[in-house]
Order: sequence, then C-alpha cells, then structure tokens
Amino acid sequence: MSKEIPYKIYLDEKDIPSSWYNMRADMKNKPAPLLNPGTRQPMTAQELSGVFCEELVKQELDETTPYIEIPQEIRDFYKMYRPAPLVRAYCLEKKLGTPAKIYYKFEGNNTSGSHKLNSAIAQAYYAKKQGLKGVTTETGAGQWGTALSMACAYFELDCKVFMVKVSYEQKPFRREVMRTYGASVTPSPSEMTEVGRKILAEHPGTTGSLGCAISEAVEVATHNEGYRYVLGSVLNQVLLHQSVIGLEAKAAFDKYGIKPDMIIGCAGGGSNLGGLIAPFMGEKLRGEADYRIIAVEPASCPSFTRGKYAYDFCDTGMICPLARMYTLGSGFIPAPNHAGGLRFHGMSTTLSQLYHDGYMEAVTAKQTEVFEAAEYFARVEGILPAPESSHAIKVAIDEAKKCKETGEEKTILFGLTGTGYFDLVAYEKFNNGEMDDYIPTDAELEEALSRLP
Amino acid sequence: MSKEIPYKIYLDEKDIPSSWYNMRADMKNKPAPLLNPGTRQPMTAQELSGVFCEELVKQELDETTPYIEIPQEIRDFYKMYRPAPLVRAYCLEKKLGTPAKIYYKFEGNNTSGSHKLNSAIAQAYYAKKQGLKGVTTETGAGQWGTALSMACAYFELDCKVFMVKVSYEQKPFRREVMRTYGASVTPSPSEMTEVGRKILAEHPGTTGSLGCAISEAVEVATHNEGYRYVLGSVLNQVLLHQSVIGLEAKAAFDKYGIKPDMIIGCAGGGSNLGGLIAPFMGEKLRGEADYRIIAVEPASCPSFTRGKYAYDFCDTGMICPLARMYTLGSGFIPAPNHAGGLRFHGMSTTLSQLYHDGYMEAVTAKQTEVFEAAEYFARVEGILPAPESSHAIKVAIDEAKKCKETGEEKTILFGLTGTGYFDLVAYEKFNNGEMDDYIPTDAELEEALSRLP
Repeated sequence: MSKEIPYKIYLDEKDIPSSWYNMRADMKNKPAPLLNPGTRQPMTAQELSGVFCEELVKQELDETTPYIEIPQEIRDFYKMYRPAPLVRAYCLEKKLGTPAKIYYKFEGNNTSGSHKLNSAIAQAYYAKKQGLKGVTTETGAGQWGTALSMACAYFELDCKVFMVKVSYEQKPFRREVMRTYGASVTPSPSEMTEVGRKILAEHPGTTGSLGCAISEAVEVATHNEGYRYVLGSVLNQVLLHQSVIGLEAKAAFDKYGIKPDMIIGCAGGGSNLGGLIAPFMGEKLRGEADYRIIAVEPASCPSFTRGKYAYDFCDTGMICPLARMYTLGSGFIPAPNHAGGLRFHGMSTTLSQLYHDGYMEAVTAKQTEVFEAAEYFARVEGILPAPESSHAIKVAIDEAKKCKETGEEKTILFGLTGTGYFDLVAYEKFNNGEMDDYIPTDAELEEALSRLP
Repeated sequence: MSKEIPYKIYLDEKDIPSSWYNMRADMKNKPAPLLNPGTRQPMTAQELSGVFCEELVKQELDETTPYIEIPQEIRDFYKMYRPAPLVRAYCLEKKLGTPAKIYYKFEGNNTSGSHKLNSAIAQAYYAKKQGLKGVTTETGAGQWGTALSMACAYFELDCKVFMVKVSYEQKPFRREVMRTYGASVTPSPSEMTEVGRKILAEHPGTTGSLGCAISEAVEVATHNEGYRYVLGSVLNQVLLHQSVIGLEAKAAFDKYGIKPDMIIGCAGGGSNLGGLIAPFMGEKLRGEADYRIIAVEPASCPSFTRGKYAYDFCDTGMICPLARMYTLGSGFIPAPNHAGGLRFHGMSTTLSQLYHDGYMEAVTAKQTEVFEAAEYFARVEGILPAPESSHAIKVAIDEAKKCKETGEEKTILFGLTGTGYFDLVAYEKFNNGEMDDYIPTDAELEEALSRLP
C-alpha cells in the first residue's frame, strides 16, 4: 500500500466497534476461576451478583462468546470522545533517527484523562439498566474515580467514591473533578462504614490504603438497597470493555494495510494492556498472525517478572475473592516514592494465563528512566504523558533505538493510555532531581509471598 | 443536505488551512495604528523590530494581504494536534430540549490545554528562522506560557517565562509543565532585571502583577543579544494565527452545507474570539453573508460593554505602545476573586474597530452563572471546560433556551477554547459555594478611565 499515512489516523464515527472482543473465547487454557475465599470453590454467578451488576457478572464469567455487542447507549457515549486517534509518531522517529515506524493509540483526549472511561460508562450503563440507584468504588490516584463520576453523571446515577485519605488530601484537583461531576468523595478510612470505624479506632492517624477503601466501598454497596460495587481494572469484564482500544487500533492499521511487529503496553492491573492487545492476541491465539507482545511493569512492583503464579487475594484487606494470577502477595506495598498507578500487587487473571502460556513477554522499567522518556516524548510529540503510559514509551524508544542499530524497519505500536496533567507533583520531583528508584529486594518479595493464602 | 452529521466533524489532515486569514484586509475602517507613547506617532516597523521578530512585525502591520501562507514547518506542527474537531453538541441539545443546533469548535485537546498553541508555534518558528537564541514572555494563568514552552521545545529555542509571583506559588502545576518543556520560569518581580529590582526595593512583599511581568520580559528581550519578546493575545499577528480556528470550523460546516446563525466567543484580549470569527466576519465585511456575532466578557472586566474606545497603554506598567481600543483604563484591576483569564483591561484593536462599527455585539456574564454553565456542560457533554470558554457556553445555552421558547431551529456555534484541568482551584471554590460575583461600580470605572493617557 502506498497511501500516505497521516499523523493521526481517525476512524469514522460509524466505525467505532459495535462489539467488544472477549480474548478468553479464543484461549485454549482459560484463566482460572475466582474462588470463594471461605469455601475455596469457584464463585457462582449468584454469589457475585450481590456485589456486581447481573449483566456484568455474566460478562465476568463468559469464557466462550468471542464478540459481545456494545449497547447503542454506550456507543452513543463513546461518540463523545471516540474514535481515539492512532498516531504516527513522525516527530519521535525523526528525533531518534530510527528506521522503525512508531505508532501509539492515544486514549488521553477525554476529561477523565485516560482509557478508564471505556469501562466506566459500560458499568454505569448496566447499573442503570438494572434499575440501581448508584454504585460505589474506591480510587487511589483518581483516574478511575474521575471516569466513573463522569459516567454516572451521564446516566444520573449516584456515585460514591472512597478515596484513599492521603490522595484525598494530596490530590485536591482529582477530588474536585469528581465533585464537579456530582460524585460524593469520602476520604477513607471514614466513619461511614463499620470497617472504616474499626480501622480508625485501631489506627487513629492512618492515611488509608487502597485495600481499606475497597473494603469500605464493598460494604456500602452490599449494605445499601440499590447499590453495587464497581472496579476499574483486573476483572475480565474490564478487559472486555477495554478491547475497544485494540479494536480501533487494528481497524486503523487495516485501513492502511499495516501489521505491527510488536505491541507494547504498561501493566498494572492489566486493563489498558489487555484492551490494547485484545484483537492482536486473538489472531495470535487462533494462529492467524504473530506479534511480539510486551508488558512493561515498574521495577518497583514487578508482578509478572518477579511474582508467583498462584491464588491470592485481589485486595490488601483480604475480603475479595481469590484470583489465580501473577502476584507479589496481597501484603506487598510498593515503595511510597513510586509515582502514578501500576502499584497493584497482582494482575488480571486473563493476562496472567497468557503470560504463563508464553503468549507475551514482560520487562521492567525504573522510575527515573520512565520519567526521562516521558519528558523526552513530551518535548518531541507535544503530549505530556501519564507516568503509567510512560513505561510503554520508555520501552518503545528502546526498541526503536535497537532498530537504528540493526537497520530494521520494524513497526512498533504502544499504548498511550492517558495524560499526565494530574501527575505534576511527580514531574516536579523529577524536574527537581528528587526522584529515585526503589527496587524491592529478594528478601522483601519472599516475605510478602510467604503469606499467600 | 441530508447527510447525517457525526458528533465530531474532523477535517482531513490535508485540509488544515494552508493560509491564515487577515480580517483587516477586508475592513473598510482599519484598526487604528499603535502609537509610540513618547512621540504619539505610529510605531514604525523599525521601532517594533527591536521588540518583536521581523516577520511578525510585518504581519502586525499588514492591513492589505487577505491570506498569508502558513509555512510548512508550522503546518507540520499543527498536524500533531490539528485539525481540531467541530463538535455537534447532541447531548446538550437533548438535555435542554431545544430545537437549536449547537456546535462548538474544541481547541482543548493539546497539552497546553488551549488554542494558545496556534500562535505560540508560529511565533517560535519566526524567531528560529531569524536565527534568534530565544524568546521571553510573561504569563499569568499559565496557558500562554505552557503553549510557548511547548513551541520552543519543538524548535529548540530558549524560553524565558516571567510568571506573576502569586501564580508561580499558587499554580505549581502550570509551572512544572513549563519546566518539563525546558522553559526557565522566574517568579516576577525578580532580581534578574532592573525593573524587577526596583519594584522589589519599593515593595519588598509584592506578589507581582502582569504589568510588572511584561516589563521584565521586555527588558530581558531588549537587553540580550538574540532574544525577542512574544505575546499571546491582543496583537494583530496573534489574531491572524488564530484564524485557523475559524477557518477549520467554516470548512467543517461547509462539508455539510451548514451556515451558523450566530457565533459566540469569550473575549479577554481577543485572541480566541478573533480567531473563531475570522472567516465568518470576512464574509460579513464583504457583504457575502450575515452572522450574529456575540462577544461574551466577564461582568467583572467589561471592556466592550462599559469601557471607552480610546488610546491607552496595553500594559499596567505603561511601557508598551498605545493602542486604540475598548479599555477600562490600564490602571483597572479586575476583582481578585475573578477566576481564569479574561482579566485584560483592554481589547484587540481589530475587534475594537469591528465592535465600534457595529459588526458584532457584546454581552457580559457573571462569574457564578458562568461556573453553573460550566458544570452543567461538563456533566452533559463530558468535557470539563476552561472558565474562559465557559462564558461562551453560558450565552450559547441562553440562546438555545430562547430557541426552545420560540421554536426556532437556529444554528449556534461557540468556541470551546480550552479545558479546565488547571483551573480546579476555581471549581473547588464553586463546589464549596465560596464563589461570588463582583461587578465594578460606575465610580470605580470612572476613576480608572480618568487616567487615560
């Protein structure tokens, strides 16, 4: 094909995917089921539906349907910020002097600042359809909480966000976006819940943790008529919704007859990586094509590369089901100096199985080199990237430099999941030379892994 | 035409305008020339070129060339974030239940967060072409400084930003974006300049002002070999560059055979309004079409509606040339509670002449009603708007409501110049019910206007 490739490939609105793609349908080895931590038996739809919306429970458990139709109401919402562009990084290629062709799928052009909105709107829709009054959730960095508050405002659902107290105080801007969208934002631990009161009584000065915020959100959802709990990553349903990222990227490539050689995404809980790679992985699973697929995780929280493939709790509070995944142990807490997301001790069960079966690679990146790549990218490509996505940028640049050495014209795709507008405290640290790298020792990891359930 | 109109109309990359449009060429009454404050004679090209780049001086003084070609290097940069979408506000129309058709041109999808980048890249390009080392500027809210630092990073120019000290301290995020793009950001007044040292000696505790920051930036530009001063609004050259906004909007409308009935933009110094209306005003000036054109200014800083059409200084420090414009007096300082930009005491000379000649209307909006409109819009359309643009949103909603009463299917276009991600301190005030409206009294305005030069 000799068509000139623009800087940004936009699909037409009518080409927004009409179905999500479910990778599990094409996996020979399905991800292991969630277990009830009490009985150690697979969680049933009935058990799950006390916590999650019915339709979402169905999606969570569906291992056989490859394509699940996206309801029109969700597609209409998608039209407000999708299709998202597939960008050809011409300026970056030129600056690097590489023969590689670099593309990124950019998901940051919406007020939530990230891809999280793709799943938030789906989860809000099913909650509304079920006739619920509202949903509860927790948020740490705040991207998920922002996305959910936007989705709930659209469907006029109540939205209760438990925000880790330290973030609530240190990230007032994130809190205010959520409030502007009508969400109630409660610093966690709070006096609103039994678990919150208990923690406050035991640790009066605590600044909270994600594990505690999850516990509070789940308690409020299960103790209040008409509420359910929603989650922004890790779950199969979330990866399903996020497949729009990859489906659009693939359609944009197909328009120009291009096949990427490698696909690079950052990995925390797996929502953006799982979404980006979905249709490409589908082809790989069906033996129709081959791609190098690379997960990039922070050296400070290396689930794939240094974790264990085992059943573990998804939350620090140990109230959620057990999931078989690459985990550092639910007691593992990443170094406090680590900026941005990707702090989750575990990993999506689907991605864990795929990694275990050799369908993808994983590498780590250190925090300071990630911010160096972020700044370099910002100056050359004009977008200030989120720290999470900058892990993918770092590895994409490395791969492009290798092409420069070998002269290979490889086509690289990476996921630029979000913008860094709300991460400027981290950029400030970096600009001031106050950022450092902490890599957990083997002893630390052993200790956390020794307490697996 | 019966083509279905998508939520977002994107032009093709090749349809990014190849020329800027210069409204002055079609004006019978040209805007009055800038005067040398000492001699009261029109500023010559030579006088101006000590402060501004040569090519920009030419553009500043050119009243006859209707189309000025956009250099390819600038068009290439534009491709990184343009064409910007013309959005059909379907959700807003539905929510309001109006028969009006509402469109907005969205300029917020770039890291500077606003339209300012359109002129910043042009000004940086001409500085580079002239072989300069760098440029200096001032910034208050920070949008312009951010845009300029991005543009300078692209062309590898040094960028020295003087940031009003109170903003430097209260808006650390804006400061950090600029630093990430490699700009040096100095709180003003500083010890770096003569004027800064003088002010600091007289007022040791001062938190600075835009007037003082301008003086420092101009001093550094004129006292250092290889530097020039650049400005983000008010000037003719800036309106010229910003015409890409209107040209793209018009081309997008033309694709679907649509003619807007009214065009609404917020007005501070005039850069975004002047850019948005440019080609439409051109048709109006040439008698080819008629449009209602509405400038919206804050009730707290009402240059058009309560100012005087007279020669005045553009800066509080009274070191810049005199411009004939609608002004509240260069000594007028808007209420400190006023959030966001649009705080300029004067107005673009071109827009002033057009308003004086009856080609456009002007209305005011109060701060709290502007934020009410902003929140409403954010929840319905999914974009958190900048406070400046929200003035236009407020009036667009009012006009759409009038259509609901009368049943008229008018087509409304407004400019959504930027996002509010860096304005969350103002949103917080609004969310907490701590925002109020201050409208200057007649006596206050009289006092400021009594000191016109």
